[in-house]
Amino acid sequence: MASEEVYRASTYAPVNIAVIKYWGKRDTKLNLPTNSSLSVTLSQDELRTHTTAACSPSYAADSLQLNGQDQDISGARTQACLRELRQLREHVETQAPSAPRLSGMKLKIVSENNFPTAAGLASSAAGFAALVRAIANLYQLPSRPTELSRIARQGSGSACRSLFGGYVGWNMGTNSDGSDSTAYEVASASHWPDMRALILVASAEKKDVSSTAGMQQTVATSSLMEHRIKEVVPKRMVRMEKAVHDRDFEAFAALTMKDSNNFHATCLDTDPPIFYMNDASRAAVRMVEAINTNAGKTVAAYTFDAGPNAVIYYLVDDEDAVAGTFKAILGDKTGWDGKRGQAVKTGGSAPEGYEVVSDSLKKGISRVILTAVGDGPRKTEQHLL
Amino acid sequence: MASEEVYRASTYAPVNIAVIKYWGKRDTKLNLPTNSSLSVTLSQDELRTHTTAACSPSYAADSLQLNGQDQDISGARTQACLRELRQLREHVETQAPSAPRLSGMKLKIVSENNFPTAAGLASSAAGFAALVRAIANLYQLPSRPTELSRIARQGSGSACRSLFGGYVGWNMGTNSDGSDSTAYEVASASHWPDMRALILVASAEKKDVSSTAGMQQTVATSSLMEHRIKEVVPKRMVRMEKAVHDRDFEAFAALTMKDSNNFHATCLDTDPPIFYMNDASRAAVRMVEAINTNAGKTVAAYTFDAGPNAVIYYLVDDEDAVAGTFKAILGDKTGWDGKRGQAVKTGGSAPEGYEVVSDSLKKGISRVILTAVGDGPRKTEQHLL
Repeated sequence: MASEEVYRASTYAPVNIAVIKYWGKRDTKLNLPTNSSLSVTLSQDELRTHTTAACSPSYAADSLQLNGQDQDISGARTQACLRELRQLREHVETQAPSAPRLSGMKLKIVSENNFPTAAGLASSAAGFAALVRAIANLYQLPSRPTELSRIARQGSGSACRSLFGGYVGWNMGTNSDGSDSTAYEVASASHWPDMRALILVASAEKKDVSSTAGMQQTVATSSLMEHRIKEVVPKRMVRMEKAVHDRDFEAFAALTMKDSNNFHATCLDTDPPIFYMNDASRAAVRMVEAINTNAGKTVAAYTFDAGPNAVIYYLVDDEDAVAGTFKAILGDKTGWDGKRGQAVKTGGSAPEGYEVVSDSLKKGISRVILTAVGDGPRKTEQHLL
Repeated sequence: MASEEVYRASTYAPVNIAVIKYWGKRDTKLNLPTNSSLSVTLSQDELRTHTTAACSPSYAADSLQLNGQDQDISGARTQACLRELRQLREHVETQAPSAPRLSGMKLKIVSENNFPTAAGLASSAAGFAALVRAIANLYQLPSRPTELSRIARQGSGSACRSLFGGYVGWNMGTNSDGSDSTAYEVASASHWPDMRALILVASAEKKDVSSTAGMQQTVATSSLMEHRIKEVVPKRMVRMEKAVHDRDFEAFAALTMKDSNNFHATCLDTDPPIFYMNDASRAAVRMVEAINTNAGKTVAAYTFDAGPNAVIYYLVDDEDAVAGTFKAILGDKTGWDGKRGQAVKTGGSAPEGYEVVSDSLKKGISRVILTAVGDGPRKTEQHLL
């Protein structure tokens, strides 16, 4: 078989970390959320999924490989993405009869993360965003990121936000078919490029409850969840968008920390309770508070997803005050050896009176990742097959 | 001076551990709560405050000693209790002019706990209940426990519940002067005498935030608190009273665990967040869940006050399944050597698959206390001076 009969396209896609959290679905099949959310897209220099999508008349079946391991592609979520993308390709083929009939060929998808998958770093968001974006490139779909976000959402809810760079909202929508539950750009990375993120990766510990299972337990049992959905989040979405537009870090930080705590509060109020934060997470909270107290203003904001890792947002001007304080404590951990990490000046030693907190961090954190706000998916000619 | 001029009376008073939690004041001066609460009074064999109140024309000033240390008696809360009790004594003296004029004499109060004060075991509740009860005995007040609970509440909110034995409610009340914010007996200890409590005392760690400060931060900043107060607790109070009346342990346990988690969720939702539970607390939760799963029904219920100690309620018939499982893990800690502890048969080894949980318990728990539901304050002729 001639090699020209293999069609392929590749993309990189980023990780995003929410500052207004997604937790709870009103439709589990379509991944329609119970509330809107907002995230920061992180730089692909440090965290990205690289995906090549290929199709050929010679392929016998759809297949998906991640980091060299064959993955089950038969799940309803992956199938929903493939089905929707093929339908859009069929439309292209109907419009341009000379276009090759790619929609009828089987797909081979190969993916690689440049970070440990198991570290709890939102890999499914980057993964589904890359899968959808790579196939859209392969199919030469005219779809805009908003349309693709609708498809990626069906793979993994938060994946919809990884179709955009910068500061990204996900409108929960109201339609029962999910057609208006899509992501949108609140502001580009270049609007507020100074945003940095320090990720404290917790030592391997079995995850308490998967986020897919956990969020529905919370919806079903937490007496506080309805209040979060109806009262708390809608107001915070408005304020957070304004904070981003105004580049108001203090407002951004206050909302980020409150919403992380509010989300983990509803987890604790779940029956049985879900604990994602551990003693090291609590220590990270206390250290951020100490850094802000020392600075006399809010220069750092923590947030925790469905796991113990801390993500700490700060502006580049405060790098030594924020990342430098953590480097003074965690300087012997993996992750400071990159370009960004080497540039961080340790602010001397850890704050006085925080010996117990420092000790918890040293015990509970295994590596750090320094990164920043970044762009959306990038097309690449580097193919993985 | 003749010795007969010293008048004295003594009492023991119990600790209580809430199953529907008190957290938040609508009036900080009068200790009027934002919601009603319900507790179990624990046996004075294991946990009690012993207090002697004395007065004499020869005393120059009011004084208070706890565990051999002089305490500041000038605080508004202690003063409020003394003032109210003296007023009631004045009323007695007016009615019976031959009664000695004790209301005009200075008081000497001496207190001793039979447990470590710093262990976070609700010592202020037992302390103020004993202070009020001892002075009421000294003054030969005709007041019923309800009236005394109104006074003790002004010393420490939860102290009002330690004026009663068994299962005790504290009605939040509606009057602005606090006259209807008093404790009441839901059921006596003899109504449901099988209730046991295993307390896992966490290794000394500085308390995150005092409960007095913490609860008002929650009231001021938690977006979930109002929902807890208005919607969650009122329904649970009704259900919990019914569970106690019906001796329905499964209902009692479910409500106890949910309300503990709900309370800690509002703490986490506080700005800045308050963490009372640590990794050992979380391990206790998981172990209780494992015990219930193994038993095929709910035989154990955890609850956590404003600190990392776990209090685990169970019925005497399930002692080996519940306390025995913890003894298998924590058998080398202080506290099993008493009569109750020796009687506990270890249920063999810890459940399989709970090695990490067991390890967290071993690291984080320093001692255990085995106790049971018990009676209210007991008068004693054992005087401390």
